[in-house]
Amino acid sequence: MPPEPKARRTVADPRLSRRRLLGGGAAAAGVVGATAAGWGAAGLTDREPARDWALDTVPFYGKHQAGIETTPQRHVAFVGFDLAPGTSRDDIIGLLRIWTDDAARLTSGLPALADTEPELAARPGKLTITVGFGPELFTIAGLPQRRPSWLRPLPAFPIDRLDPAYTGADLLIQVCAEESTTVAHAVRVLCKHVKSLVRVRWVQRGFRDPPSGATMRNLMGQVDGTVTIAAPDFERLVWEDGASVPWLAGGTSLVLRRIAMDLDRWDELDVEARELTVGRRLSNGAPLTGTTEFDEPDLAALDRHGIPVIPPSSHVARARHTSDGERFLRRGFNYDEPPEPGQVSNSGLLFVAYQRDIDTQFLPVQTRLAEVDALNEWTTPIGSAVFVIPPGVPGPGHYLGQQLFDS
Amino acid sequence: MPPEPKARRTVADPRLSRRRLLGGGAAAAGVVGATAAGWGAAGLTDREPARDWALDTVPFYGKHQAGIETTPQRHVAFVGFDLAPGTSRDDIIGLLRIWTDDAARLTSGLPALADTEPELAARPGKLTITVGFGPELFTIAGLPQRRPSWLRPLPAFPIDRLDPAYTGADLLIQVCAEESTTVAHAVRVLCKHVKSLVRVRWVQRGFRDPPSGATMRNLMGQVDGTVTIAAPDFERLVWEDGASVPWLAGGTSLVLRRIAMDLDRWDELDVEARELTVGRRLSNGAPLTGTTEFDEPDLAALDRHGIPVIPPSSHVARARHTSDGERFLRRGFNYDEPPEPGQVSNSGLLFVAYQRDIDTQFLPVQTRLAEVDALNEWTTPIGSAVFVIPPGVPGPGHYLGQQLFDS
Repeated sequence: MPPEPKARRTVADPRLSRRRLLGGGAAAAGVVGATAAGWGAAGLTDREPARDWALDTVPFYGKHQAGIETTPQRHVAFVGFDLAPGTSRDDIIGLLRIWTDDAARLTSGLPALADTEPELAARPGKLTITVGFGPELFTIAGLPQRRPSWLRPLPAFPIDRLDPAYTGADLLIQVCAEESTTVAHAVRVLCKHVKSLVRVRWVQRGFRDPPSGATMRNLMGQVDGTVTIAAPDFERLVWEDGASVPWLAGGTSLVLRRIAMDLDRWDELDVEARELTVGRRLSNGAPLTGTTEFDEPDLAALDRHGIPVIPPSSHVARARHTSDGERFLRRGFNYDEPPEPGQVSNSGLLFVAYQRDIDTQFLPVQTRLAEVDALNEWTTPIGSAVFVIPPGVPGPGHYLGQQLFDS
Repeated sequence: MPPEPKARRTVADPRLSRRRLLGGGAAAAGVVGATAAGWGAAGLTDREPARDWALDTVPFYGKHQAGIETTPQRHVAFVGFDLAPGTSRDDIIGLLRIWTDDAARLTSGLPALADTEPELAARPGKLTITVGFGPELFTIAGLPQRRPSWLRPLPAFPIDRLDPAYTGADLLIQVCAEESTTVAHAVRVLCKHVKSLVRVRWVQRGFRDPPSGATMRNLMGQVDGTVTIAAPDFERLVWEDGASVPWLAGGTSLVLRRIAMDLDRWDELDVEARELTVGRRLSNGAPLTGTTEFDEPDLAALDRHGIPVIPPSSHVARARHTSDGERFLRRGFNYDEPPEPGQVSNSGLLFVAYQRDIDTQFLPVQTRLAEVDALNEWTTPIGSAVFVIPPGVPGPGHYLGQQLFDS
């Protein structure tokens, strides 16, 4: 039963007009530049001490999209969308303009335009919103000639058991933040503002809880993501410089694989069998030939019986890049969903790889792992999607992916 | 392809034996008393600075179970179990002994006995594990006469649209921690150690991200949980003293309701209509007759037209306790799951109420709300379960719920 429309409050709230201004779409573009702390000081969060990361923001504008080089936040939602039938190039541009505006505001700790839950925008918690384009978007937009050559579904691997519910999509958002509430709010805003143009194909939520500055553990207990790319190599290995794909200068690509873990069978292994499967120690992630996590694995080392210390079929041996050009950025998350009837767990890894060129960096490694990897006995890829990640938005007035459409 | 069983590591790891000792079940009971920080110092987490809450623990032993008076942690999983057909009283006691041991260890930052992912136990993050019994457990255990009179499914309310997938259960665990990984690991340990005796009926995950020391917001943007119980009133309103239910002295009851929010339709309301629906301000949760969250609502106040400032049909007016004895402890969480096809969101609240007597404290309030509450237009109960929460475990050698079986 809705309330009487004629009832009125008698207590004035000076904050309302400010929020309505923003919520009603009349906010000046310059407001986006305000800091979350500034907004908090203005009233919305006035009971709130600056705690932890709650008011921390990650800059939205820049040469590259945020959420890639950004230290991974604790919580993620990947949302894959299909474009509605009949979507035009102009529709896509309209959608991207909306998302650009939403992302610029939300990542600053400000409500989106017409944000119906502006209160939930006040704790950005290092929010980043990263947008990607799937292969079909280029066809739908009438720009097939601008699709990077490496942007296509991965080849079918014999280990795959792909579920369409987690595979492929025309559009992607990756929403990361330190708080789940922030992720939930941002996802809702981004989805509902474009709901006439898209259909949500899948939502994949994940989390990671590494010690400060250290590598996360996956739900098998392993240190996961040791081999990745650090700052000095981003220009060379992550960001396209425009030589291969001119419009993509400053952009990259994303491979998202949903890897189910058969924890029940994994749990039948003792520690030694697990460590031989992976080639690393469970205690600290060190290769079996080393003592600390970042020691280089010595794949040639033999024990006193002449047997390789790191088994050639182990995950580390098979995943090892055979050249510098096979390296990529990893930014994965755990997932843990309610189990199917009769099962104990429904857990795994959202494997996330960023690289300049999927064909030369990710594919050789994945192909080797699909052929032989001792770990395959306990892991199964059940989802797979690839995206081009357009460059960043240089500043207000521009929109995500504009380089594709303007060039 | 499993690794060669004959391959052997050559590098000794002094930590392994310690972990194996624990994992193999040989740990002395006294080890449970070790602190997480001590364990960290011993090696497992030696790369880890004491960050935030990661190593914080909440005492397991005590007069009451933890996870009730405990300041709510950020993440929760509620798991409802059905007992397998043919389960005996001794089976239940065996299960409770296992859970007691698991909970004592995990909440201390120690691996469970035979924990197959001991590395994931090293960051307890204020982990609490709280166990509850559903109505049928008393029948199955052959103790129907010890079932508290208020322990039965709630009456069917006209507003309910209950889904069996979220309704009822013979046994409950509430697992709370500051980190999702900790929750995932603890849930898996507790489920798999008793999997021959139970079937998982549902898993309900939730989160909350309030400012430090403040009330959380739900996904409608409202400050949620203002009216609850503070420390001085726990003895009177939460903890059974044994007068009504002798074996339950130190215990309580839990009502878990899954409340779906129709955010799409809620979003059609402007701020004023929302505030009149709830009777509180969105900005800070203050009643419409007050200025700060904890001001008492003045339900008799009229505006200059003689109309109530707080509409009589508003949530605050209807939910208001009519006597001190209608108060209960609220400890709710948001939920946000992937949307159904064609929908934008699948969000809501895990409403959690702890009280000494469901019939006299929770039911009168719920009955009033089910009759009239302006908010009902946008919220729908889709799950409902009730549990008795047995007293705490006084110390090593005892088990959860022992008071029920021994008395």
